[in-house]
Amino acid sequence: MPPFDVPEGDPFGPHNLPYGVFSIPGSRDRSDRTVGVRLGDHVLDAGAAAHALGSPYASLLARPSLNPLLAAGRTAWSDVRRALTAWVTVPSHREVLEPLFHPLSSVTLHLPFEVADYVDFYASENHARNVGQIFRPDAADSLTPNWKHLPIGYHGRSGTVVVSGTDVVRPSGQRKAPADPAPVFGPSVRLDIEAEVGFVVGVPSELGSPVALGDFREHVFGLCLLNDWSARDIQAWEYVPLGPFLGKSFATSVSAWITPLDALEEARVAPPERTGPLLPYLDDTADDRDEPGGYDLRISVAVNGHVVSEPPFSTMYWTAAQQLAHLTVNGASLRTGDLYGSGTVSGPTELERGSLLELTWNGSEPLELPDGKRAFLEDGDVVTLSAWAPGPDGVRVGLGEVTGRVVGKDV
Amino acid sequence: MPPFDVPEGDPFGPHNLPYGVFSIPGSRDRSDRTVGVRLGDHVLDAGAAAHALGSPYASLLARPSLNPLLAAGRTAWSDVRRALTAWVTVPSHREVLEPLFHPLSSVTLHLPFEVADYVDFYASENHARNVGQIFRPDAADSLTPNWKHLPIGYHGRSGTVVVSGTDVVRPSGQRKAPADPAPVFGPSVRLDIEAEVGFVVGVPSELGSPVALGDFREHVFGLCLLNDWSARDIQAWEYVPLGPFLGKSFATSVSAWITPLDALEEARVAPPERTGPLLPYLDDTADDRDEPGGYDLRISVAVNGHVVSEPPFSTMYWTAAQQLAHLTVNGASLRTGDLYGSGTVSGPTELERGSLLELTWNGSEPLELPDGKRAFLEDGDVVTLSAWAPGPDGVRVGLGEVTGRVVGKDV
Repeated sequence: MPPFDVPEGDPFGPHNLPYGVFSIPGSRDRSDRTVGVRLGDHVLDAGAAAHALGSPYASLLARPSLNPLLAAGRTAWSDVRRALTAWVTVPSHREVLEPLFHPLSSVTLHLPFEVADYVDFYASENHARNVGQIFRPDAADSLTPNWKHLPIGYHGRSGTVVVSGTDVVRPSGQRKAPADPAPVFGPSVRLDIEAEVGFVVGVPSELGSPVALGDFREHVFGLCLLNDWSARDIQAWEYVPLGPFLGKSFATSVSAWITPLDALEEARVAPPERTGPLLPYLDDTADDRDEPGGYDLRISVAVNGHVVSEPPFSTMYWTAAQQLAHLTVNGASLRTGDLYGSGTVSGPTELERGSLLELTWNGSEPLELPDGKRAFLEDGDVVTLSAWAPGPDGVRVGLGEVTGRVVGKDV
Repeated sequence: MPPFDVPEGDPFGPHNLPYGVFSIPGSRDRSDRTVGVRLGDHVLDAGAAAHALGSPYASLLARPSLNPLLAAGRTAWSDVRRALTAWVTVPSHREVLEPLFHPLSSVTLHLPFEVADYVDFYASENHARNVGQIFRPDAADSLTPNWKHLPIGYHGRSGTVVVSGTDVVRPSGQRKAPADPAPVFGPSVRLDIEAEVGFVVGVPSELGSPVALGDFREHVFGLCLLNDWSARDIQAWEYVPLGPFLGKSFATSVSAWITPLDALEEARVAPPERTGPLLPYLDDTADDRDEPGGYDLRISVAVNGHVVSEPPFSTMYWTAAQQLAHLTVNGASLRTGDLYGSGTVSGPTELERGSLLELTWNGSEPLELPDGKRAFLEDGDVVTLSAWAPGPDGVRVGLGEVTGRVVGKDV
């Protein structure tokens, strides 16, 4: 019987237990939101559960955002997860907890944490090579000279990170094709997606003190799916010399559920073989490191319910641990709620590309969808990223989906 | 008699009244901080003053950050300023207020607001042309093709914005000269300053709704001095194709005092003549706009107390209002505490350049300082930006200085 008896093999069974923030109908303001944990197609009011069972974690969980839990650190993360696992599996708790479960369909899911800084990387070699071939077809190497030496990244706009389900208003801006005499202004005509994985920082670090590769798990709580919506025409005209700005700052969607790293132990894999030398602070090939730094996440990209791509996260050249080490090597500090995106995930084959830019080869080879051709996104299109990872005993670990509908400016 | 009898002509007289956040000796944590207003060389505990005088503004001012005041909006900003002006000038308040003043030398000044997103622009034509000539000497035009069409900008790291007086740890990172076979890792050897003005957003805007040029004053509360410390060697190797990242994310220093726009009415000037066409959302030359968009701020850059440059802010090609209109034209929302930098301020002459990169022409013409030559900054160097603006009746409006000392990693 729901909520406890999740069907065998359900990717949101008690082996998963991702965290989110929800409110129930009738809630008025932010203070009515609270931390929830997903089990099957229900959400457990985790703060109320902790309170009802006399757990010391109520103070971390009866909150309108995940930030207090994120800040609490790895020992607390493990303890809370162990407690939650017991609560949802030990039969004696059923009577107390049952009223604290809500059907997913009855609640509103909110942005699960307060985003501090948002950084986006560019860590898929397949993606970087595709983009290089599209935009610099005459270059001797499709990768820039720095690509194999450091995980290239840049800061994005944390104030426009939105939760899955939020409509995305088509951005307006300047665009200019090389042959145009002057830029024109109007709604983007090359609106794209970027299928990514986002990593959520829990434990801060001090200004001036880099975070070593091996300390990744002490600082990063978990991950989410992330769609870094991109207006390719705005981006192309603005990005030299200081990088993407308005082409990406209008919306970045994240899944409502944050999957703790502890739920992904069975998904850890070695990253691809390094084909370039690594400076010591990025070197994860040293003999004394036996922990694989990659994650085997199988992503699926759907437009209007039609799957157009299945990017494999295991192919990312740079790992999340390397990205964190690089991000802080200059002494930049971390704050609770920092979010960093992996960069578009693209595998080696055509049907594993994580952006329409690559899937349609800059619009020259439109996708054939059941409802017509797509070079880039049209108003009304709904984009959904979903994913799963290998879990214990062959069961999948589901990641929360991230979805968004494109709306025209005056729709 | 101090604190009330500020000498005539003092740039921090009752015509100025910038806002900051301070604590007194013996304070323990953040909750002991409170909003202060500077008068001469004293700071008034503004929250306590409001409380003592029965003012309704105590709830905005008795706070550990300026954010509640910033969020309150233009009418409240004007009302509070009018009240403060009365408090420090009407003799009958002296007895009540005198104990609420503290000598500046006795207090600790803190980061005055919680920084939401931080954006940095590139709005000085002289600076952009100098940089273009240094890095792209063979280019036909020292400006990129987009420069005269839009205010180029990018997002920086808001978590490493620090208050004046904070030491700046020399960042380490990768650098690679074109002739080097591979990048090397180590402390930056080309550490630089960027003399800028920072604008502080008070009133938020909604996602999907651009802020028009004419609404600048409804959203922006005031300005500060800003030093966007830059590691030129790290930046040069990393910045293609996605822009500056670690070369600038280790520290951005802001002055402890935020000068309200209302104190700078006499400093408003027309921006330089536009030498390129402007799209309507950026066009501040229309006949029905009689409000000049520039500010006449005279900046001074000193290294170890020796003035090396006096950049004039009035020469900036793009105004703060244009930057705000551009930043939001794609629908990006604003939050209270958003900060945006003007970009390095450089005037047309050699002694008006706002970075060592330009002052030493990429290190090839070192500065002669009393304590030796400087191509870039050395450990122990103290950089101080100060500025003033024309005020009422010929009196200057002083801006709070921003200072910082460079320290080696192991110093």
